[in-house]
Amino acid sequence: MIIVMSPNATADNLSKVQRKLLDSGLKYHLSQGESRTIVGVIGDKNIIAGLQMNSFDGVEKTVRITEKYKLVSREFHPMDTVIDFGDGVKIGAGHMTVMAGPCAVESMDQLLEAARCVKKEGAQFLRGGAFKPRTSPYDFQGLAAEGLQMLRRAADETGLKIVTEIVNINDVELIEKYADVLQIGARNMQNFQLLKEVGKARKPVLLKRGISATISEWLNAAEYIMAEGNMNVVFCERGIRTYETFTRNTLDLSAVAAIKEISHLPIIVDPSHGTGRWQMVQSMARAAVAADADGLIIEVHPHPEVALSDGDQSLTPKNFAKTMEEVRAFAKLMGREV
Amino acid sequence: MIIVMSPNATADNLSKVQRKLLDSGLKYHLSQGESRTIVGVIGDKNIIAGLQMNSFDGVEKTVRITEKYKLVSREFHPMDTVIDFGDGVKIGAGHMTVMAGPCAVESMDQLLEAARCVKKEGAQFLRGGAFKPRTSPYDFQGLAAEGLQMLRRAADETGLKIVTEIVNINDVELIEKYADVLQIGARNMQNFQLLKEVGKARKPVLLKRGISATISEWLNAAEYIMAEGNMNVVFCERGIRTYETFTRNTLDLSAVAAIKEISHLPIIVDPSHGTGRWQMVQSMARAAVAADADGLIIEVHPHPEVALSDGDQSLTPKNFAKTMEEVRAFAKLMGREV
Amino acid sequence: MIIVMSPNATADNLSKVQRKLLDSGLKYHLSQGESRTIVGVIGDKNIIAGLQMNSFDGVEKTVRITEKYKLVSREFHPMDTVIDFGDGVKIGAGHMTVMAGPCAVESMDQLLEAARCVKKEGAQFLRGGAFKPRTSPYDFQGLAAEGLQMLRRAADETGLKIVTEIVNINDVELIEKYADVLQIGARNMQNFQLLKEVGKARKPVLLKRGISATISEWLNAAEYIMAEGNMNVVFCERGIRTYETFTRNTLDLSAVAAIKEISHLPIIVDPSHGTGRWQMVQSMARAAVAADADGLIIEVHPHPEVALSDGDQSLTPKNFAKTMEEVRAFAKLMGREV
Amino acid sequence: MIIVMSPNATADNLSKVQRKLLDSGLKYHLSQGESRTIVGVIGDKNIIAGLQMNSFDGVEKTVRITEKYKLVSREFHPMDTVIDFGDGVKIGAGHMTVMAGPCAVESMDQLLEAARCVKKEGAQFLRGGAFKPRTSPYDFQGLAAEGLQMLRRAADETGLKIVTEIVNINDVELIEKYADVLQIGARNMQNFQLLKEVGKARKPVLLKRGISATISEWLNAAEYIMAEGNMNVVFCERGIRTYETFTRNTLDLSAVAAIKEISHLPIIVDPSHGTGRWQMVQSMARAAVAADADGLIIEVHPHPEVALSDGDQSLTPKNFAKTMEEVRAFAKLMGREV
Repeated sequence: MIIVMSPNATADNLSKVQRKLLDSGLKYHLSQGESRTIVGVIGDKNIIAGLQMNSFDGVEKTVRITEKYKLVSREFHPMDTVIDFGDGVKIGAGHMTVMAGPCAVESMDQLLEAARCVKKEGAQFLRGGAFKPRTSPYDFQGLAAEGLQMLRRAADETGLKIVTEIVNINDVELIEKYADVLQIGARNMQNFQLLKEVGKARKPVLLKRGISATISEWLNAAEYIMAEGNMNVVFCERGIRTYETFTRNTLDLSAVAAIKEISHLPIIVDPSHGTGRWQMVQSMARAAVAADADGLIIEVHPHPEVALSDGDQSLTPKNFAKTMEEVRAFAKLMGREV
Repeated sequence: MIIVMSPNATADNLSKVQRKLLDSGLKYHLSQGESRTIVGVIGDKNIIAGLQMNSFDGVEKTVRITEKYKLVSREFHPMDTVIDFGDGVKIGAGHMTVMAGPCAVESMDQLLEAARCVKKEGAQFLRGGAFKPRTSPYDFQGLAAEGLQMLRRAADETGLKIVTEIVNINDVELIEKYADVLQIGARNMQNFQLLKEVGKARKPVLLKRGISATISEWLNAAEYIMAEGNMNVVFCERGIRTYETFTRNTLDLSAVAAIKEISHLPIIVDPSHGTGRWQMVQSMARAAVAADADGLIIEVHPHPEVALSDGDQSLTPKNFAKTMEEVRAFAKLMGREV
Repeated sequence: MIIVMSPNATADNLSKVQRKLLDSGLKYHLSQGESRTIVGVIGDKNIIAGLQMNSFDGVEKTVRITEKYKLVSREFHPMDTVIDFGDGVKIGAGHMTVMAGPCAVESMDQLLEAARCVKKEGAQFLRGGAFKPRTSPYDFQGLAAEGLQMLRRAADETGLKIVTEIVNINDVELIEKYADVLQIGARNMQNFQLLKEVGKARKPVLLKRGISATISEWLNAAEYIMAEGNMNVVFCERGIRTYETFTRNTLDLSAVAAIKEISHLPIIVDPSHGTGRWQMVQSMARAAVAADADGLIIEVHPHPEVALSDGDQSLTPKNFAKTMEEVRAFAKLMGREV
Repeated sequence: MIIVMSPNATADNLSKVQRKLLDSGLKYHLSQGESRTIVGVIGDKNIIAGLQMNSFDGVEKTVRITEKYKLVSREFHPMDTVIDFGDGVKIGAGHMTVMAGPCAVESMDQLLEAARCVKKEGAQFLRGGAFKPRTSPYDFQGLAAEGLQMLRRAADETGLKIVTEIVNINDVELIEKYADVLQIGARNMQNFQLLKEVGKARKPVLLKRGISATISEWLNAAEYIMAEGNMNVVFCERGIRTYETFTRNTLDLSAVAAIKEISHLPIIVDPSHGTGRWQMVQSMARAAVAADADGLIIEVHPHPEVALSDGDQSLTPKNFAKTMEEVRAFAKLMGREV
């Protein structure tokens, strides 16, 4: 249930509503809009059904939400969420955020070269995996803590923020120490234990769509994170599994429109994993911007031909530069700052 | 096999090559480029393997094509194909062609209202089904010949070309009489009898992607048409069937890049069937243009709420106008004329 | 709508009901059960809604059918349909019908050898394509009319019935002359023109499931055939397209249970196309029988290694013999006669 | 790489091979067959390539395995793996193992009633979730440790073994204390951290197929577990995600044949999740047995209509009894003991 407070509601009105909810054994989250406050109520359905919140002073109306996801929905938070990282870096409406870098952190040299390149072309975030979930146990699994340190050093030297993947529920503290955004990978989108842990973290979460997740399951995964208190979730469309084999995945750009219709949270697009072919990254990056995505995450490798993973889908610095030039032009047409 | 003639080859050189092919019981198609002619050879693999075409005067080289599709491939025809309909209407590189109108022809009034609207907003083609392939035998099946006549009348009154679907191999002559482009619908993409028949037609063919067709199967379907002599095929991406149920289909915009990589033929996008939701048509139309599509086919209905089919995915005239405004801006950025 | 006549209804009662329907511009089909007649009414929804059939003598009740398919449904025909071909050959409840033979008719020798083998092992039908729908226009397209004649000769010499595919709406008469069952292939499941034509034929139709057809679309395709008057439709599950590439298709054996729940029509299973791997045919044939399929259609080739198509999924005579031995044992356990 | 020791190899021969591998920084696993020992070598590809193991005494041959999975493959372990739980309970060739019980542990009463029923009908394992991964954070999440205790009590009172799901990498010790088999659910099939943890456990692991996992990914997931030393992995086919919505998932029974072709590990089938409809469980259970599955896992609830989860797919005790009767008959025909 959502409780919409009237524009004239006093702090005391709100406080009584909050007390009633807590006394009833329920939890709530506040969404403070320009003119009014919205209270999202979570807890036992039967208790919620028995509340008589319309009779409280300052309550304009109550809204039953039939979908399972509540905090992610526009009903709870009508305005687009914008996440502010300081230094002018923001994710959300009006901004075009670019995250770029290698698939995996391989060495300090590789990382620095990539970081300088993506910074120069206008990216705000350095991406790179220190913990790599790989299909086979015998594939390169990432440099772990050492990789995190390299990421931080490369980011600090170049003035970038860091987004990196978390795969272990016991690593939240470690990764939060180094990263600016915690990434949940596609394979872990329904690893609910991990979602709950990053829900308790203070850093924003980039939530990749599961390889065959429906829009509804994806929204529910974000709800797991928000229900624990972390309101800064960014969706990332990265292609879904279909029968088509020409591309690695099928990039579902209609997901951008779907998420924006239902939710207030930002959504970015990953054309690298979404297609698995570097030849398609540029055109799909343009299309993502035109589809109203809030940003892009792109694999860039100084030397894709020797990459330890995902070389086929990584842009060279030169092709990344060309891509960014077009991204800027299209973002401008969409009324976004890059 | 493809025979690349040298830039200095004489008419006589070419003529001897042609004679040799015919004498061997093979068929061929010529692709006349700016500086050289390419001969696409079709027929029995074993006979082709036995030819010694490199020894002919004027032959620069021969290329074995391992893929099943030959005439659709860029090897056969390196430059983008542009189809010229006269009156300044073209489909292909440098142009942005818009086809719009109702799903089904319902009445003269409905059609004229739709035609005037789409003409006013800049569409070059009127779309509308006179023969409707419907999942159930008890659904509206279209106005048939009467519908074709209405289409022609509406198109003539407004200065539009017509694209309409053919479903019966015995109807080619009838539909060619009225339409400017023959549409093969998704359900008939592998109706090879129908492909062969429109391959003998003189009018261009719009070939929709089958609901679960791979890129490769789609290219082969076009090859069926071209192998019969009709070189004017336009692909149309209209969404594929996946597990996702939020949208009617999953619009695969990466297909645009895939087709342009492999083939010289134009490709347009259908965001109406591709999403099944009018709310998404505008953003997917923008994205399609940014993905380098050569055109769009959009369902527009003067009164979607009473449409006999596909009301949920039809734009009102007002929303179509808004969409076209953006399409023009994005097409300009892509270097295309609308 | 379905009109259930009372067990005591007279011929005159029924006749008056029929007259009323015809006078109202509606069509109907009769299903004559052991104790009562059921009248399936087809036509304009609004007219049907205005009928007052409950007031007619002899009418026990009327049932509105909300699904689009009516004649295929168990409401219209509660008992399982059994199709009798004479000579003791039946398809439907209590029987296990086996159709076997090569993918394509290649030569009289190949066909006779295959026919003798499958007859010896207990098959009732010889399968073999004279008209082959192939992905590429340059692949072997079948021997056409000559192939039909070979099929008939091989069948007559061995005492088998024939099932063969029809791909052209103009071929019904030709194929009916030779075949005992007309097969609609997966690619043509929604070629509605072809469905209507075989709906007017006198021979039973084997309706393969489209490569990505839902159960509901499949039922509607059968309804197209039945609405034209041909009540003898047999479903054939042949695998659906999924993301999995280890098998050619994913055999959906739950479709057997689904069809039997909703419809009265028989359903057989094609483990050859369903898996695309001869190694799996035997176990999937057993599983199909256990799932309550009414029969099997299996590719058998005297020399799979030289087959012009589908060699990978064809059984050798020896493996077919082993398969049939197990099929008999499992069919017996299911209470079916082979 | 796999090292096949000769039947005459001495303990000393083997010991020298082992020492060489360890000295080279590699790991290995032994598979002790009736006549010979096979050594599966794991580690750095370049080091392995440099070994000259053929020159060692007692080595019959070495085999390069090109697939990523090695320990799961039949090359490493040619005979079917049979897991012996004592008390006559075994999973693998020649046995038909049935696991049954409610989706979630709800109360001691519910569990005991279910346990008595499934024991009476011949199941060897009680299934039931104490930790439930649910799509929404607001759905019932399971009784946790309390649920585990109930499971143990119900199992001990009825003489059943327990299979239950683990979702948290920190819970291995806790669940091992109560359960006989640790289940990895579909959503966690590529939660590699969890796979590694259960790889260190002493109890066998039931590895459900991911909702859109390929056969190859599934085999690699098992390899993750085995690479940590736990050789007792049982696959469980539970349906895959497709476009079809009539069933909850599409049960892929061809996966049974695929796994048996490639791997020596047992595979069981879950017709409850595989279809999502109790009406289909009985026929799919029969089909699974006929497909050569080593067992079944079936949801049984004393009162499905009030189940906290998955009521639609749970059998009543009465329907479970009918199902088991048929399972026994078909298992017997397959040469298996129930």
